[in-house]
Amino acid sequence: MHALAAGDFSHSMTFFVQLAVILGTCRVVGLLVRRFGQPQVVGEMIAGVILGPSLFGLYFPSFSAEIFPRSLIVDGTSGRHPLLTVLYCLAQIGLVLYMFLVGLEYRSDLLKGRARSALSVSLAGVVVPFALGCVIAWFLRDDRRMFTQGVRPHEAMLYLGAAMSITAFPMLARIIHEAGLTGTSLGTLAITAGSADDAMAWCVLAVVLASFQSSLMIAVTAFAGSALFVLVVLLLVKPLLARFEAAAKRNARLEHTYLPSLLVLLMLSAWYTDRIGIYAVFGAFVLGLAVPRGESAARVVRAIEPLTVNLFLPLFFVNSGLNTRINLLGSTEVLGVTALIVLAACLGKGAACYGVSRLTGVGPRESFAIGAY
Amino acid sequence: MHALAAGDFSHSMTFFVQLAVILGTCRVVGLLVRRFGQPQVVGEMIAGVILGPSLFGLYFPSFSAEIFPRSLIVDGTSGRHPLLTVLYCLAQIGLVLYMFLVGLEYRSDLLKGRARSALSVSLAGVVVPFALGCVIAWFLRDDRRMFTQGVRPHEAMLYLGAAMSITAFPMLARIIHEAGLTGTSLGTLAITAGSADDAMAWCVLAVVLASFQSSLMIAVTAFAGSALFVLVVLLLVKPLLARFEAAAKRNARLEHTYLPSLLVLLMLSAWYTDRIGIYAVFGAFVLGLAVPRGESAARVVRAIEPLTVNLFLPLFFVNSGLNTRINLLGSTEVLGVTALIVLAACLGKGAACYGVSRLTGVGPRESFAIGAY
Repeated sequence: MHALAAGDFSHSMTFFVQLAVILGTCRVVGLLVRRFGQPQVVGEMIAGVILGPSLFGLYFPSFSAEIFPRSLIVDGTSGRHPLLTVLYCLAQIGLVLYMFLVGLEYRSDLLKGRARSALSVSLAGVVVPFALGCVIAWFLRDDRRMFTQGVRPHEAMLYLGAAMSITAFPMLARIIHEAGLTGTSLGTLAITAGSADDAMAWCVLAVVLASFQSSLMIAVTAFAGSALFVLVVLLLVKPLLARFEAAAKRNARLEHTYLPSLLVLLMLSAWYTDRIGIYAVFGAFVLGLAVPRGESAARVVRAIEPLTVNLFLPLFFVNSGLNTRINLLGSTEVLGVTALIVLAACLGKGAACYGVSRLTGVGPRESFAIGAY
Repeated sequence: MHALAAGDFSHSMTFFVQLAVILGTCRVVGLLVRRFGQPQVVGEMIAGVILGPSLFGLYFPSFSAEIFPRSLIVDGTSGRHPLLTVLYCLAQIGLVLYMFLVGLEYRSDLLKGRARSALSVSLAGVVVPFALGCVIAWFLRDDRRMFTQGVRPHEAMLYLGAAMSITAFPMLARIIHEAGLTGTSLGTLAITAGSADDAMAWCVLAVVLASFQSSLMIAVTAFAGSALFVLVVLLLVKPLLARFEAAAKRNARLEHTYLPSLLVLLMLSAWYTDRIGIYAVFGAFVLGLAVPRGESAARVVRAIEPLTVNLFLPLFFVNSGLNTRINLLGSTEVLGVTALIVLAACLGKGAACYGVSRLTGVGPRESFAIGAY
């Protein structure tokens, strides 16, 4: 018991250094990239790559192993260092809190009359990159550096298609937020299209996974589970929250339990959507949509936002950088193919969204902005 | 790489359930204890004991093992579950953020003219329980259920003395805060005495540790290290922060980096004070004292407080409950001795603080309140 406590104690020391180094690097890189007109979130991803195995770990291996230990030796056997899981879980908390805020600040009223635009943009944003992904995967299907043996052509196509049509919804939301577009009709249109895109892409991934493991249940659980979740949240949780909020306005003691209750619901939503094989991000966003709007919602945003954006969310973006191994990409040929795929994904999505939003009557400047996101 | 990521993924699922169960239990128990006039923090410690091995784990072992797994089997060898470390680290973050807030809200101006009271109360609050602890340890020195073989009498006396004089500073701070006494002269007096008590007790513990391991360095590092820390924070960090804050008032971009910079400093302080063998709580509190007061400090409090008090700090109090094994106390005889020690500690400290604060001219009601804390 005592030895365990001592282990935790020395972990917590390393953990505090990790946080200091990560947050410090984010700030410095963030200042630099903003000079070049890039958002803070790009700085955070670059900070992750700098601190990760491709740079800091490569040039200062012993220093890096001390601050970001990757393995832990207990009784002679080497295992994964528990602080990796700590960082991962903190990043997940940050992400879930953030997507809850995005849902909370989402204004469906701004979408009135533009629902057709949103739907078409989002469909185009999935279908075109998906088709491009399928075509590319068809050409690469026999390349063993890309797909391991035993992957059937249609699986490769579905996989690359889904990968290319995923929006990185949290990234999109963060950029819109940083640009001050939250609560504008452009921001709302982009968020709507992005969230619908991601939901579709995650369903396609569930199909791919089901096909890999030849188990139909995975796909069924994902589809039926998300439908059930949305129904329960909007038809049951939403009216209950509305009552709770109305009662909390009149009773100070109830008001104190409003935020903690929302946090419990948020953790449950994150757990459930993770469990059915859809992303926790989706659960957090949908729950955010169900929270009654008004002064109390604004208070919840003010309560959650500062620590989320300044302490926990950066860990998510840094963590994805920390786990990126650019050198895994190996030969220049593979690097070239990767660049081609990234380019095709960007152009395909951008052009499709631009074209469709023009067709549905959105102005050219706004359409270009939507395409660029 | 893929297997690791999948492991993290399933950990994060369990992690979200843990948070939901912990926060939910805290709320329910908190509502109950407040009916009996007890503060929320007592509810949180009880919630921890309820969820821990003595109750939930004893009566629902399989359910408890699923939600609060304690070991993880990798490649046939069983190890400590990484989520235990995750919970511990989150609890530490909560604690450090909270003690930073306590430092930030500390108003030294309320102590003017009462410094003599504060100092005497704090000395009495250490010396009397310490002496009591020494006496009790002297009588129990040969009891093998209390002290293992090889513990010398003076070590046993120092240890029990230090243990009985520690105030549980975070607990004290939380109760004062919940009672709405922050920023009052009574609250300030109690916080001052409590923090001085704890600093002294931690130094005594360092001496005990040094004596156990026959290494003088441990004690020297703790004493010199804390002195150095206080000097650097008050003479170097404090004026720099005052300049930063003044500049941030005029520049919106700088203002955005004020909170993140404070968080980086906070993590560094927590790491350093942990490292020299003093509690991270101490570093966080002292750094809080160095932050310039005024509107910007109030904004920092509003930014940090809600998530800290409603999400992370409860994990600290629950965690101490989760690790309490009441059944370890074994026979009724040991239980009796434990109860006696607790009683002696409470009465000794209470009576000493009451007596001394009366002697230094504090009114009887206030003195009684200080004694009770």
